[in-house]
Parts: sequence; C-alpha cells; structure tokens
Amino acid sequence: MSNAVTAAQAAAVLMQADDVGILIHQFPDGDAIGSGFALCLALRSIGKKANVLCADPFPAKYAYLTDAAPLQNFVPQFLCAVDVADVKLLGKLSEQYAEVDLCIDHHGTHRHFEKNLLLDAGCAAAAMPVADVIDCLNVPTTPLIAEALYTGISTDTGCFRYANTDAAVLRKAAELLDIGIRSEMINRLMFETKSRARVELERLALEGMRFYFGGRCAVLTITNEMKSASGAAEDDLDGLASIPRQIEGVWVGVTLRQKEAEHYKISVRTGPEASACDICALLNGGGHLRAAGCSFDGTQQQAVEAVLAAIQQTLPYIAE
Amino acid sequence: MSNAVTAAQAAAVLMQADDVGILIHQFPDGDAIGSGFALCLALRSIGKKANVLCADPFPAKYAYLTDAAPLQNFVPQFLCAVDVADVKLLGKLSEQYAEVDLCIDHHGTHRHFEKNLLLDAGCAAAAMPVADVIDCLNVPTTPLIAEALYTGISTDTGCFRYANTDAAVLRKAAELLDIGIRSEMINRLMFETKSRARVELERLALEGMRFYFGGRCAVLTITNEMKSASGAAEDDLDGLASIPRQIEGVWVGVTLRQKEAEHYKISVRTGPEASACDICALLNGGGHLRAAGCSFDGTQQQAVEAVLAAIQQTLPYIAE
Repeated sequence: MSNAVTAAQAAAVLMQADDVGILIHQFPDGDAIGSGFALCLALRSIGKKANVLCADPFPAKYAYLTDAAPLQNFVPQFLCAVDVADVKLLGKLSEQYAEVDLCIDHHGTHRHFEKNLLLDAGCAAAAMPVADVIDCLNVPTTPLIAEALYTGISTDTGCFRYANTDAAVLRKAAELLDIGIRSEMINRLMFETKSRARVELERLALEGMRFYFGGRCAVLTITNEMKSASGAAEDDLDGLASIPRQIEGVWVGVTLRQKEAEHYKISVRTGPEASACDICALLNGGGHLRAAGCSFDGTQQQAVEAVLAAIQQTLPYIAE
Repeated sequence: MSNAVTAAQAAAVLMQADDVGILIHQFPDGDAIGSGFALCLALRSIGKKANVLCADPFPAKYAYLTDAAPLQNFVPQFLCAVDVADVKLLGKLSEQYAEVDLCIDHHGTHRHFEKNLLLDAGCAAAAMPVADVIDCLNVPTTPLIAEALYTGISTDTGCFRYANTDAAVLRKAAELLDIGIRSEMINRLMFETKSRARVELERLALEGMRFYFGGRCAVLTITNEMKSASGAAEDDLDGLASIPRQIEGVWVGVTLRQKEAEHYKISVRTGPEASACDICALLNGGGHLRAAGCSFDGTQQQAVEAVLAAIQQTLPYIAE
C-alpha cells in the first residue's frame, strides 16, 4: 500500500537516504529528464550520491542537462521515481527496480507501485512537485537546477501554451528566470528547432492526413516507410501528435505511429469538446483529459477503424 | 517636442480627457489590438467615451476582443496612440490624426510624433505599459480587459517563447490568469489553430524548399500557384517566414512570397550567427536584427540569386 506524503515529508525521507537512484520513464521527455536531473543535482549538492536511471538513452537535445555525468560504480540503495505514472513505464528497468521507495508524480491516473507517494495531480508537470521538494531540502536552486526545472515545466506546457498552464506554473517560471537561466537557448532547442528529416517526415505525413466526422477528427499516420524515406530518427517524432488537433474545426486529433508491421502507437489530442482519456480508455490506454494514448495490434486500417469507433462511442454526436 | 511621462502621469492626462480615440498601427497584430482594446475598455468603465481607430480591419480571430462594439457618432477630442513606433504606421489615418496627445509604446526605435510619451523600450509588449496605466487609473481589471492585455503579451512573446520573454512578463501573465481569463481559448486561437488551406500550403511549400551554403541557408517559396491550389487566403500566410529558420543548422531562413508574376516579398529570419537587417539592407529593405524584409522585382530564380548574393556578401564565410 502506498503512503501519501507532502513535499516536506518527501524531502525528509530523501534526507535520510543516500545512493539515490532516480528512475524516470522510458522514452524520456523534457519533464522526465528535467525533473530527474533537477532532483539528482539537488541531492548531489548536499553531498549525496545520486544518478538518473532510464531504460532509454537521453535524446541529444537535452545534453545541456544530461552532460552532468553519471557516477561510476553506482549501486542505488534508495529508489525515487519521478514523473512515472505506472511501474510499467520504467520499461526494461521495471524488474530490476521493482521496490520503489518514493514517487513524485503529477498524473491523475497514477497507479500505485511505491512505498511513499507525493502526487500533485492537478499540476502541469512533475517538475512542479520536484521544485517543492527541492525547496524543502533547503538546497539553493543553482542555475543548472533551475534550467532542469524550467525544461520540465516548459516542455509539459508546450511553452505555456497548453490548457494545463496556470498562474502557479507561470510564477514558477518567472522565479526560475530570476535565477538567470538560458531560457532563450532552451526555448530555441525545445520549440524552435526541427531536423531536416523531421521537416520531410511532416511533409510526407501531411500528404496522407485524413479527415472524418465532417472534419471534426483528423488522423495523421507515421509509417515505417515514411520514417526510412525521410531518414527520421525516433527523436524526430516528438510533438507530431499535436499537428492534427491544431487544424481549424478539429475536435479530436489522432496520430498513429507504426512501431512494427502490425503494431501501432496511437496518440489522441482533444480540444475542449472531447476527452482524450475517455477515448483511449476504450482501447485499454489512458492519460490526461486532453492528451492520451494507447497501443493497437493490427493493420493501419484496423487501427483507424478502432479509434474512430472509440471516438464515436465517446462522442455520439460527433457524426451529426 | 515630446514629453516623457510615467504611467501615473499618463493616467492623469487620460483622467482629464474624454472622447478618446485610441490609434493603433495598420495591419494590426495581437499586441496592437490587445493594448488598444484594454485601454478602450478601461476608459469606458470609468464613464469616458473611447474607440479604437485603425487603418485596417481587425482580423477575425480577434473577435472576442473587437466585438466590443465601436461607439457611433464618435468624434475624438483626445488622441492616444498605442504600440505605434512611427506616425507612418498609422497608415491612411496618419493625415487625419496627425496631432497625437499621448503615446504608449515599447519600441526602442520609437520616432517621436506625440505630445506626451510613455515609452517602456525594454519590454516585450505595449500591453505591459498599458497595464501599468490601467493600474494607475484605478480601474478594476475585468476579465475582458485582462484577456486584451494577455493577448498583447502572449502574441508579442510568441506565447512566452521568444528571447523578449522575461520574468516580469511571466508574472504579469500569472496575474491576468488569476483574474479568470479564457487563456486556453486565446492560446488555441492564436497559436494552435491552422486552417486546412494553411496546412496544405505548408506542405506544398516544404516540397519546394531548397538549401544552400551546406544547409546554412534554407529558402521557402510561396508561389501564387500554391496559394490557389491550397485555397489559402492572405491570413493563412502569417508566420510562414519562421519555418525555414527553425531547421537545424540553418543560420539564415528566407521566405519568398510571390505578389505578382515578377514581384516577390522577401522575408529573412536569422539565428545568432547572422543579421537579417544587414542582408535586407543590401536589397533596399530593413527591419530588426533577427527579422527583416525587402521586395524584389524579377523572376523567382533572380530573387533567389539576389538574396543568396546578399547573404554571401554579409557572411563571406557562410560558404566555407
């Protein structure tokens, strides 16, 4: 059974610990990496050993954070998961590190797997409760810690653009800018830089975009063929899921990513008219109200049919 | 001669005035419209007559602000220009309204044309000094006034993404969110909505994008043929100029927009490696350090050759 803790209690637990392995989810994004490295750097600054542990390599664009070299010969004695909504999201690390002492998360759909849980389910990014814990550790927020927290907050809010952006997030960002961070560089790297392969992949995907329910649903498909034709790497796929929902009149934007010949990862993004979470729940997936996902085994055609059926079941009036 | 005033002094001048014509620049953007309507609504809320005056119509996406209907039979007795860096930017209104009593602006390049000037040259948006003036008027910031100010701040900072985003801007946005504004709707309208025609136009333009100088320069061309094939309107072309510069490794992003058979509008965007202004100056244009423009009479081929020559003259080492 998981024990709910406050930020102060989480900090107290961490103060008692050492050799802290900080687990973040597989296919790590800006909030996972930012939250993980902020906590890691904060713990190291008070003399503790800590490493960020992840099933997958860190994408190159986060090098300004991940260059904080991992400690060698590190054997974690305490495990803290950050931004991990479900133990399955640890990927191949989930067996090795099954006993998690503390979890700091922000997902409303969090599935308990830890001894102690700090959950801020209403908030935009795991970096927010992590920042609270760091404050309670009485660690000075160095510029690099501030950049890590800013990376988490800005990436999970689409640079303060998504519906999860609230006054608390904007105030926290202001505090971090006061510390003197390279926010211009971070914003450029995260939000204003695309590889040539990514641009080509977008072009190919847009060519095949289809509309349903009178334009209220748009489906973008990224096939393995498009990936090899464009030369795109996995990193180049970040953020593609937001494209179909941005089109005028679209309530539900769907992105299918082919993983194997007959295996697709489905991302659903919705406007205020629909719940992405409800749609994906019908396909054994989950997530947030406006952004959710699931997997599908079958052909592209079957995947599209399944997701359209889930949309229509959730929103019977969408076809009107 | 122009008299520099503080926000409190500007408010005092406005308190003495009535029938206030609020002038904003031609081809109005989010900051012009947001700042103008915020001030207009604030003045009306204390019983004064006020209208926003502009040489051009307001784009439809700002209807949530511009629906505040103009007063009929309005004859301004006092003129206040907002976000107007130069009297020429009043467009066709500049002759009719040559005598401007007060100007509230944020452009470092402001050219004096008013009696009294409140200039906050360091700040991201005209909405920031306008918010200061409204505070000094002791007007409660209603949700609609707050939405107008938020529109100005968010559009001029690219939703808190551009280099001009500082802690003050983020704190002001947090304050405005506390008032209970429809920031999700505004962000969606301003930053997350593309027409289907725009998406198709982007796809066509990307197909023809060309790279020069080992990938350090990217040229995107929007021909009249692409415009008609996609069904795109002039509004659909907003922001296209930022596309080529966002590509990894690109120092200089160039966008050519065909206006007539042999007449092109050229937009240049640069990273920290180059000066857009210097490049365009060689083609009899101008603008800011990172964003500038010019016109060209000739074929597409000639336009590309001319801009590449200007780039090479400005950055002789770009071809290395």
